[in-house]
Amino acid sequence: METPLTPLEFARRSRKLYAAREAVVDGERRFSYAEFLARCDRFAGALAQLGVRKGDRVAIIAPNGHAMLESFYAVPQLGAIVVPINYRLTPEDFAYLIKHSGACVVVAHPDYFQAIAQIRRGLKRVRHFVALGEAPAGWLDYESLLAGAAHPPAPVTVKESDVLAINYTSGTTSRPKGVMITHRNAWMNSIGFLVHHPMTGADRYLWTLPMFHANGWTFVWTVTAVGAVHVCLPRPDPAAVYERIVAERVTLLCAAPTVLIGIANGPEEGRRRLPRGVRVITAGAPPAAATIGRIESELGWQITHAYGLTETSPLITVCELRPEHAPLQPADLATLKSRQGVELITSGEVRVVDEHGEEVPHDGATLGEIVARGNVVMKGYYRDAKATEQALRGGWFHSGDAAVVHPDGYIEIRDRFKDVIISGGENISSIEVEGALLQHPAVREAAVVGVPDTRWGETPHAFVVLRGEASATAAELREFLRARLAHFKVPSEFKFVDELPKTATGKIQKYVLRNRRSAISAQ
Amino acid sequence: METPLTPLEFARRSRKLYAAREAVVDGERRFSYAEFLARCDRFAGALAQLGVRKGDRVAIIAPNGHAMLESFYAVPQLGAIVVPINYRLTPEDFAYLIKHSGACVVVAHPDYFQAIAQIRRGLKRVRHFVALGEAPAGWLDYESLLAGAAHPPAPVTVKESDVLAINYTSGTTSRPKGVMITHRNAWMNSIGFLVHHPMTGADRYLWTLPMFHANGWTFVWTVTAVGAVHVCLPRPDPAAVYERIVAERVTLLCAAPTVLIGIANGPEEGRRRLPRGVRVITAGAPPAAATIGRIESELGWQITHAYGLTETSPLITVCELRPEHAPLQPADLATLKSRQGVELITSGEVRVVDEHGEEVPHDGATLGEIVARGNVVMKGYYRDAKATEQALRGGWFHSGDAAVVHPDGYIEIRDRFKDVIISGGENISSIEVEGALLQHPAVREAAVVGVPDTRWGETPHAFVVLRGEASATAAELREFLRARLAHFKVPSEFKFVDELPKTATGKIQKYVLRNRRSAISAQ
Repeated sequence: METPLTPLEFARRSRKLYAAREAVVDGERRFSYAEFLARCDRFAGALAQLGVRKGDRVAIIAPNGHAMLESFYAVPQLGAIVVPINYRLTPEDFAYLIKHSGACVVVAHPDYFQAIAQIRRGLKRVRHFVALGEAPAGWLDYESLLAGAAHPPAPVTVKESDVLAINYTSGTTSRPKGVMITHRNAWMNSIGFLVHHPMTGADRYLWTLPMFHANGWTFVWTVTAVGAVHVCLPRPDPAAVYERIVAERVTLLCAAPTVLIGIANGPEEGRRRLPRGVRVITAGAPPAAATIGRIESELGWQITHAYGLTETSPLITVCELRPEHAPLQPADLATLKSRQGVELITSGEVRVVDEHGEEVPHDGATLGEIVARGNVVMKGYYRDAKATEQALRGGWFHSGDAAVVHPDGYIEIRDRFKDVIISGGENISSIEVEGALLQHPAVREAAVVGVPDTRWGETPHAFVVLRGEASATAAELREFLRARLAHFKVPSEFKFVDELPKTATGKIQKYVLRNRRSAISAQ
Repeated sequence: METPLTPLEFARRSRKLYAAREAVVDGERRFSYAEFLARCDRFAGALAQLGVRKGDRVAIIAPNGHAMLESFYAVPQLGAIVVPINYRLTPEDFAYLIKHSGACVVVAHPDYFQAIAQIRRGLKRVRHFVALGEAPAGWLDYESLLAGAAHPPAPVTVKESDVLAINYTSGTTSRPKGVMITHRNAWMNSIGFLVHHPMTGADRYLWTLPMFHANGWTFVWTVTAVGAVHVCLPRPDPAAVYERIVAERVTLLCAAPTVLIGIANGPEEGRRRLPRGVRVITAGAPPAAATIGRIESELGWQITHAYGLTETSPLITVCELRPEHAPLQPADLATLKSRQGVELITSGEVRVVDEHGEEVPHDGATLGEIVARGNVVMKGYYRDAKATEQALRGGWFHSGDAAVVHPDGYIEIRDRFKDVIISGGENISSIEVEGALLQHPAVREAAVVGVPDTRWGETPHAFVVLRGEASATAAELREFLRARLAHFKVPSEFKFVDELPKTATGKIQKYVLRNRRSAISAQ
């Protein structure tokens, strides 16, 4: 017998088994599984009444909260496609994504009413705007819609190959691309995470990661699957993170490396009260070993490093610990955990290949591109056959990430291919240089980019954020790095800045830094 | 992207990641993953040379050991179907199963050469007999075949809906039926187990359960998937179990309830040396709370109770512990764990229904039949469309198990429908009466069956095995039960026996006891 693989199945089961258990905590609002899933049904019923049909797209622009979660379980019930939009984009970006997705309904938080107002005239295909908060003129009110939807929607047959969500890439190099994630993709990704990182109904998950980002990595689905608690948080401000962890007895959270750095450096009076043993999944960018080491030693938390891309649902590797790693000292363990690791049991095959598609030697040195094939790889880019064909050429998804494979099979990303600095014919991994900089006690964050150089082609330039009370000069940092790196890898210039430009998910925007390079001056 | 769901994928990944790790321990022989999987390839290559093609059936009759494991990873590589045969059957049974499956190759352990010799003339479709041990005339030698197969077989495309194995039911009520398990079924069952009962590469699994039985519940596949160690054991004799656990630092094993009873009652000098913390999965028959309580309190082991049937790959429920169970006292925890529990996240939907297919109330009292639908339900019975249609009527697999649902949604089997005793119009669960008997300190094992009675229709009769040194009379047991059960449930007669008839997997054969009922006499 075959029944469709879909995360909707998690909701069906949790509704039956965990009805009375707490499902969602969002500020003062608390919903049990029965209440939360009934709200999802009502929203689905309301959307059906508004004319949303199988295959239609429903866009949502909202910070982490119960309505965002509800949209994930409401829209797909109709066989419709949820389009979670990065709320940190500009109104023009919103317009592009809404038009490109062809969304017929837009759901938005009050923070974005103004932005929508600016672009609304151009959104000809949008039939309804739904307000998550007091509805302006021309908007429908979310809670009124739910209250008015007495009947659950008529059951819609969903195939596992149907598209569940379109998640737009950040588009740092080109127009954002709409990644089509199927029901089977999302199911597989969620189950794979649970196999490698067990969760139970005793878990209380803190939403430090934006739900829109690759469907919260997996947590939109896995938390519900095991009957755990979604503790919502609109933005991962360290003080708010500390407060929620203590007040809600959080056991588990996710954080991009820059968010980890923020947590490690937040107000000390809050940090002191944090419980030990919180499990943290880090992904989204390669974490420095120094960051992992600090979180594990100073907070007593346990970090698991996973890796993937929006196009892979997202997880394709996890840095699993093996029995032979048990004797490792903390610093060596942190170095191991900073690697991307190995393919999940469910993710399919992951390789690092040269330009001819041949696997690179497992020598910890030869750079290749990470490619993947399996059931977490997207169906394709929405309305972009050419980009789909390019990304999936030869039957493998091409990540654009430059990595080595160690003799034990563990993959380590050295850079995005586009961020590799080529200086005097040598490859310089910006991530390696950043990792070395982060070992300096005065350095809080660092980003290294290549800038054109008449003699060397490119040379590395560093942008450095110092810790609150600390100080360091460019000469000191240069000397520090010369003791740790080949000399050609040491940045020729250092620029001290107050903060680094980041995406909504905490990735450093190197293209912004490259555009700023004219402002760099040697210190 | 979609790639086939198949347990062969576990082998592909483990070969790549765990090549140097120990895979199989079988007496004096030890194989790494590289060696074990190379042997599987060689066996596949040899079978291909013998003419085995996609869809062909290969039968194997062997106790737990490396060759049995190898057959599971060799035969399906060719797209062929493995037919693991219960080695405790008679030569006539072997003949029936080999002929019914249409196997073209039979692989057998020396213990069964004699049985095969008796039936060989009738096995017209079998082209080759492969000996796991010194080959008699007319047999091929397994190790020579492997040594002679230098090339791995040409890759065969496998679809996830292809049949992986045919597992024959025990056939206590009719001719054995051949349960067709697809690649997707087996993959799903394995992954589901790992989600609910995490395993890692640090685990060392003891094969106390026959590998032939529903593909070792899941362990043929899951142990390999996580890169753990298969510790083989031909038969679960308590002294041998103790020795292997200590010598091989076993962390995990499976046992039907009768095997658990054997372990709890084995030689004390061996029992004393057992490590605490061993995880045990029990299934195959409903375990008594008293048995669970003894293993957990006396040995300090942790029991997880799962439930399923050969037709469901096999697992459809697991007795998961929830945060609200944390305060339970040991006896109440054992009672909880004796229930079959709730559907797995991956197994699909499980219900207890009345004769009209409606769910029974969740009142812990109303008896219904367990039915299931989802991706672990078999493709059907091989060459038996009528039985398939009957078992899968209405789109649900009908288990034949009579159960109640508690208010918390936990399912508890009260009996096989055919074992329910109907006395004076009242249903008596033989399992309930057995569970009460097992609480008596002198009782080691018990089985209760209904025997015809002119006044009541049926009355319960008990077969009792006493503990080694203990004694008890029928009058004592009757009084003991009257204090614990409604009087109409107390057996009218007690028969003390040295042992109970059991299947290869440790299930008590109640039909044998019913046939013996003429021998019962009141004590």
